[in-house]
Amino acid sequence: HTNRSVNHRYKHFDWLYERLLIKFGSAIPIPSLPDKQVTGRFEEEFIKMRMERLQGWMNRMCHHPVVSNSEVFQLFITYRDEKEWKLGKRKTEKDDIVGVMVFSTVEPPAEDIGLLEAEQKVELFSKFTKTMDDGVKELLNVGQEHWKRCTGALPKEYQKIGKALQNLSQVFTTSGYEGESILTDPLTEAGKTYEEIANLFAEQPKKDLQYLMETNQEYKGLLGCFPDIIGVHKGAIEKAKEGDKLVALNKVTAQEKNTMVNRIGTMSYTFQAEMNHFHSNRIYDYNTVMQHYLQQQVEFYETIAGKLKQALTHFTVQQ
Amino acid sequence: HTNRSVNHRYKHFDWLYERLLIKFGSAIPIPSLPDKQVTGRFEEEFIKMRMERLQGWMNRMCHHPVVSNSEVFQLFITYRDEKEWKLGKRKTEKDDIVGVMVFSTVEPPAEDIGLLEAEQKVELFSKFTKTMDDGVKELLNVGQEHWKRCTGALPKEYQKIGKALQNLSQVFTTSGYEGESILTDPLTEAGKTYEEIANLFAEQPKKDLQYLMETNQEYKGLLGCFPDIIGVHKGAIEKAKEGDKLVALNKVTAQEKNTMVNRIGTMSYTFQAEMNHFHSNRIYDYNTVMQHYLQQQVEFYETIAGKLKQALTHFTVQQ
Repeated sequence: HTNRSVNHRYKHFDWLYERLLIKFGSAIPIPSLPDKQVTGRFEEEFIKMRMERLQGWMNRMCHHPVVSNSEVFQLFITYRDEKEWKLGKRKTEKDDIVGVMVFSTVEPPAEDIGLLEAEQKVELFSKFTKTMDDGVKELLNVGQEHWKRCTGALPKEYQKIGKALQNLSQVFTTSGYEGESILTDPLTEAGKTYEEIANLFAEQPKKDLQYLMETNQEYKGLLGCFPDIIGVHKGAIEKAKEGDKLVALNKVTAQEKNTMVNRIGTMSYTFQAEMNHFHSNRIYDYNTVMQHYLQQQVEFYETIAGKLKQALTHFTVQQ
Repeated sequence: HTNRSVNHRYKHFDWLYERLLIKFGSAIPIPSLPDKQVTGRFEEEFIKMRMERLQGWMNRMCHHPVVSNSEVFQLFITYRDEKEWKLGKRKTEKDDIVGVMVFSTVEPPAEDIGLLEAEQKVELFSKFTKTMDDGVKELLNVGQEHWKRCTGALPKEYQKIGKALQNLSQVFTTSGYEGESILTDPLTEAGKTYEEIANLFAEQPKKDLQYLMETNQEYKGLLGCFPDIIGVHKGAIEKAKEGDKLVALNKVTAQEKNTMVNRIGTMSYTFQAEMNHFHSNRIYDYNTVMQHYLQQQVEFYETIAGKLKQALTHFTVQQ
């Protein structure tokens, strides 16, 4: 994290994203930036949401040990004026240790990893990210549907209940019957309470479901980066597996074959590190968002119960 | 109330209803019996519901001071065998003090009520019952819609949320990442909790909305009786208002005109009594049903909050 306030134009983020993708895209998931514009470009709500998403994206980059320490990222968060920015920009654009070349800068692991084990690990992670992608999309679909109901049909219905009770109370007041108010006063209160509940339902998704959805949206973005990364690793492993054959055919020397296998070791090491980073973040993030969601839901249902309890106190006739 | 268990065939109720309608229908609302059959004649649920409704109808009749003390009603609740029943049945069917004749048995009020005042009171009550009928029907419509959602779309949606969370948890367990269970265990619990919430929603209407609906249904039935009763009174008032004209035209004697006006006094007196009975029952009934509804709703939302709180305790990762 940086305590300096971020004061970047969107195009600067765009540049940062492009550079990070070029440099680390073969090894580290660099999710796309939140959409530049969808509709209502200048609408306040939209701008606020995009800023929050950009902040979320930035936080994720800041939390990555390799990305956050890279020259390009450091430039982005530390430059002080346009001159520094332009200089740094030019310099980092000349960086040619990008893509698979990045692996050459990684310190090799203490012990070698076998080709078969490397392959199995990639395969397992590949399967995992695919099924997680399905799971995340399912939750997003269900959440979207629930959001619509919570902000659409449900408040409309509670509104109607509230109106029907108040309307009935209104009718009752015209009876001219003495002591009518021991029914009409509490009935009106109950009706108003259901109108309040309608509003509580409509406002709730912004308090809990939104964060859950945003987190899943972010993970959908991250997961979308893995097929490329996995493809790079699988390709390298395939090539190394052909090494023995190529040596037999005198197409590569035994020395060259060893270099290939060693490179796989390095790649698998970084891949393993990236997997661990992803898993530990995922466990933390989903723990956080689920706890937040449940806490807000508890508060929501308790608030409704409290309001109904309050409405109940207005009734004084013994049952 | 009677403490003897009611052990009557439906056709006996049918006979009682017919007799009460013939005898008191011009003065007292005698609502129709619950439908004899709709669908699934022998379905347990339906039979149970019809019995409850018959019981409700019986309670209402028992609470009416005139109806409950009538010979026909007393026969119905006290006969001990088929012989007593048949004898009583024959006797009450010969009763010819029925319809408007019933008013002749009423003790006249202490002071006379003016024709104009009688007319105004009938008019006010007529207007009241019409608007109450609208209000009751609105609440029934809204309640029906809410019932459908609570037993249909909503539990399906909470079920889906529950399944999506459990599915995601299932996917996570395949990660092979150490310490995965600090996420997957609580996530599974949260998922199960939403499945339980789905069931709570589906079961809730039977606990609260049903009673509210039944009460409104009953009042819809009562209100449906008033147009006839009001018609009888309006007709009598119209006739009495023409009294002076008829005397002038020598069509009735002054004596006869006075008898007519006096009869209106008696009718207005019983009408007033019936109105008061209706209003005081209505105030008690709606107070009771609303309190019951709100209490059950409070319990419902508190139960959900409690379950979510419980689900929250499974999460152990510090936010």
